[in-house]
Amino acid sequence: MQVLVYGAGQLAQMLYLAGVPMGIHCLAVDVGTRDIVHPVSKDVMPVSYTQALADADVVTVEFEHVPDLLLAEAEASGKLKPNYPSIAIGADRVKEKNLLSRLDIANCQYEIITDVAQLTGICQRLGERIILKASRDGYDGYGQWRIKEPADITALQTELAELDLHKVPLVAEVMVDFERELSILGARKENGEMVFYPLAENLHYQGQLHVSVAPAQNVNSDLQAQAEAYFRKIADHLDFVGLLAVELFQVGDQLLVNELAPRVHNSGHWSMVGCDASQFANHLRAICDLPLGDTHARKVHAMLNVIAFDKPDKRLLATPEVNLHWYDKGYRPKRKMGHINLSAANYTELGQRIDSLRAYLPHSAFPCLAATAKKLQA
Amino acid sequence: MQVLVYGAGQLAQMLYLAGVPMGIHCLAVDVGTRDIVHPVSKDVMPVSYTQALADADVVTVEFEHVPDLLLAEAEASGKLKPNYPSIAIGADRVKEKNLLSRLDIANCQYEIITDVAQLTGICQRLGERIILKASRDGYDGYGQWRIKEPADITALQTELAELDLHKVPLVAEVMVDFERELSILGARKENGEMVFYPLAENLHYQGQLHVSVAPAQNVNSDLQAQAEAYFRKIADHLDFVGLLAVELFQVGDQLLVNELAPRVHNSGHWSMVGCDASQFANHLRAICDLPLGDTHARKVHAMLNVIAFDKPDKRLLATPEVNLHWYDKGYRPKRKMGHINLSAANYTELGQRIDSLRAYLPHSAFPCLAATAKKLQA
Repeated sequence: MQVLVYGAGQLAQMLYLAGVPMGIHCLAVDVGTRDIVHPVSKDVMPVSYTQALADADVVTVEFEHVPDLLLAEAEASGKLKPNYPSIAIGADRVKEKNLLSRLDIANCQYEIITDVAQLTGICQRLGERIILKASRDGYDGYGQWRIKEPADITALQTELAELDLHKVPLVAEVMVDFERELSILGARKENGEMVFYPLAENLHYQGQLHVSVAPAQNVNSDLQAQAEAYFRKIADHLDFVGLLAVELFQVGDQLLVNELAPRVHNSGHWSMVGCDASQFANHLRAICDLPLGDTHARKVHAMLNVIAFDKPDKRLLATPEVNLHWYDKGYRPKRKMGHINLSAANYTELGQRIDSLRAYLPHSAFPCLAATAKKLQA
Repeated sequence: MQVLVYGAGQLAQMLYLAGVPMGIHCLAVDVGTRDIVHPVSKDVMPVSYTQALADADVVTVEFEHVPDLLLAEAEASGKLKPNYPSIAIGADRVKEKNLLSRLDIANCQYEIITDVAQLTGICQRLGERIILKASRDGYDGYGQWRIKEPADITALQTELAELDLHKVPLVAEVMVDFERELSILGARKENGEMVFYPLAENLHYQGQLHVSVAPAQNVNSDLQAQAEAYFRKIADHLDFVGLLAVELFQVGDQLLVNELAPRVHNSGHWSMVGCDASQFANHLRAICDLPLGDTHARKVHAMLNVIAFDKPDKRLLATPEVNLHWYDKGYRPKRKMGHINLSAANYTELGQRIDSLRAYLPHSAFPCLAATAKKLQA
C-alpha cells in the first residue's frame, strides 16, 4: 500500500517508520518544491508529483499548513484523509473557534477582529487580560499579541493598523488562568470507530512544547471521559479519518479546548515506546482502513523535546528505558532536532530518570526538566 | 552515522528501521550484483559499491553466507563488525564444531568426514542415529542426510561418493534426543561489555523456525547462566562485536550448542516489541560503539513466522498486542514473508491469543500454532 504525505519533516519520517512493518510505504511531498522525497533520507525520488499522487492509495498530511492549491489537488484525488475541511479548520483559528462554538464545546471566550476599530470594544467586553492570535500563520511569525494592561491597547492599535485584518482576521481570546495543559489524541476510522490515548500533560516554554508526560498525573475517569466526549463530537462532526489531537486547558474539573491539530502530534511521541500501537501506526491504520491498534499505556512515560541542541551525549542511551529519536536535521535556533522517550514503572521513578538525564541535557536547552522531575517525585 | 550491510533481505530492513531513530543510516549490498540498495524499498541507489564501502563508518552482515571475496574486501576496510573469522565460523560447520571443542563447550558428539570410506567406521563409533551436515551450503540444498538404521548407510555411500568431500567436508553428528531447542542472543561491544536476552524456545517444522516464545517457559537461573557462560566464552574468544545468536539443545539440565549465527537472528524478532532495545537496536549500538540497551522482556512474547503464506487477513491486527511485520517480498515456497509478534501478561493469555489468531492463520501454513497454544495454556 502506498501513502503520500504532504510535508517531509520528522512526522513524515515517523509515519514512514511505522508503515514499513505493515507493508505501508510512505513517500513525502516537499510542499515548497512539489518534489517527491524519501521521508527519511529526504532524497528526491525519480517520480513526479502528479504520478505519485496518481500512484498513492491514500493521501495524508503531516501538518495543516499545506498550501491551499496542493490541498485542493489532494482532495480532488478522492484519497485525502483526513478530509480538506478538517485540515483547513486546523489551519485557521477563526474556523476552529466557530466550530467549537457551533458544537457547544467549552473553550476560552473570544471575539473575532476584522477591523482595528473593534479592539477597544472587545477589550471592554473580554476583560483586561487578552491574547490575540492571527487566524492563520502569515505575519512572518508575528502571530500573537498579549494585552495585560489597558496601556497595551494603544500600542497595539498602531501595530494592527498596518495589517490587513479583513484578509487575516484575529481571534481575541480571554487569557484563562488554567492549571495545566493537556492533550487528547485519538484515531477515527471511516466507519466511525475510534480509539483514544490517555491524556498527556504538556509543558511549554516560550511557545514550544518541551515535555509531555503520559498518562498525565491525577486524571480521574471523569476528566478522561470529558476529553473523549469533546474529541468524539469534533471527529464525528468533521467525519474525521486519521489521528486527531485536541489541546486542552484544565481549570478545576473543567476542560477548555485550546487548539485542534488534524494530524499526528508532538505530544503523542511517547506512544512510540508506550503503546502497542503508536499514534503513527494508528494514523496509518485509520487512513488505510485497517483495524485500530491498542492505545493503553504500558507504563508511565515522558517525552522530552530536543530543541536547538546538537546531538546529545551518547551516554544518555545507557540509562535504562531511555530512547533517543534523532531527526538528523541541520541546527537552527528553536528547531526541534529530536526527542527522547522515557519509561518507568511509576512517576517517582520517571522523575528520577529525568533527573539522571540532566547530566547530559543542559538547562539552557532543557529548561523544564528540573521542574518536571520535581513534580513527578512529589 | 553510515552503516553498510552485506545482504538486502528482511534483516537488513529491520536493521535500517532500528537505525533511523538513532541517526544511524543503513544501506545494503546485494551480494549477487554488488548493487547498493535501499534496505526497505530495494531501490538501487546511485552510489557504487566501492564508494559506499568507503563512505561507511561501519560495515556489517545480515547473513553469514556472504561471498568470500566481498567479505575479504569488507575486512580489508578495517570497518567490518563482527570480524571476518567470526562470520566465517558461522558459515562453516567444521570450523564451528572445532571452535566448540577447543573451547570445551558441550555440543553433540561428532566426527568430520572428508572421504566416503570413513562412513562405516564413524557410524560404528557414533551409534545408529546420525545426522550428516555439509560444512558449508553448496550442494544445491542437499546439505543434510540422516542415518536412522544401518540400512541407510549403503544408500548414503553411493550418494556421497559423487560429492567432493575434501572440498566440502561433512560433519557427522549424533542425533541427540533433546527436549527442546532454545537460543540465547546477546550483544558484545569492542570493550567486552555484553548484554543478554532471555532464552527463547524455538519450534521448527521441516527445518524452518516457525515459533519462538520468549522468555522460554521453565527456565531457572542456572539454565540462563549456563547459556550466558557459553555465549561469553565464544564471544570473548572471537573478540566478537555485534549481535550473536547461539542455538542450543536442552537435555535435562544440560545445554548443548547446536549452531552459531554471527548476526541478528529470527528467534530474536520478539525483542522488537518485547524489549526496550531490540536485537536490531543492540546490534547497531554494539557495532557503532554506543551504550548497549536494556534487554529485559516486558511481558511474555511469541513470534510466529509467516512462511509461504500471502498477506494474512487484516482482521488479525484487531487482536490486542498483535503486531504484523511484513517483508513485502514476492511469494515463493518456503519463503519467510513476514512475522507476527504477540505479547501477553502471562503464558496462559499468550496461548489464548495464539489460539484466537488461528481463525486467520491456516494450519497448512502455520502447523505449530495449535500445539504451541496448548502447551502455553497447560
